Amino acid sequence: MYKVKVYVTLRESVLDPQGTAVKGSLHSMSYNEVQDVRIGKYLELTIEKSNRDLDDLVREMCERLLANTVIEDYRYEVEEVVAQ
Amino acid sequence: MYKVKVYVTLRESVLDPQGTAVKGSLHSMSYNEVQDVRIGKYLELTIEKSNRDLDDLVREMCERLLANTVIEDYRYEVEEVVAQ
Repeated sequence: MYKVKVYVTLRESVLDPQGTAVKGSLHSMSYNEVQDVRIGKYLELTIEKSNRDLDDLVREMCERLLANTVIEDYRYEVEEVVAQ
Repeated sequence: MYKVKVYVTLRESVLDPQGTAVKGSLHSMSYNEVQDVRIGKYLELTIEKSNRDLDDLVREMCERLLANTVIEDYRYEVEEVVAQ
């Protein structure tokens, strides 16, 4: 079994209104050290071993559903989980 | 300047309807290897050096605004950015 951690972030060139709103809130709470906030998604998938290549599988799921590759980038990390 | 990556996840004991919905979608697309999906937030903060301790600052921002610690856990990583 694998635990796959997927990080989906907006591309650099894409405006992030949610991040701007959080930055505004932090500034209004006097955290003026904060220069920029960008917000993305973090997904943890638990995937069973199968005869498909895991990298292929994860990339396909990201491209087809988890990320909108027009405006988002994704990266992922794989951790093998030893069944108890 | 620091780049701080914050990961906010639902606590284990808290139901994740968004994750369940994504799992359902993946199954309907025949990705039956996927056993579980949990969805969280990923934030990238750019923070200027100040006289406050960075760990204190980040923890305080997480507890006060970025995470709802009743139902969410958070962890973070700090990267020092060398100004160009």
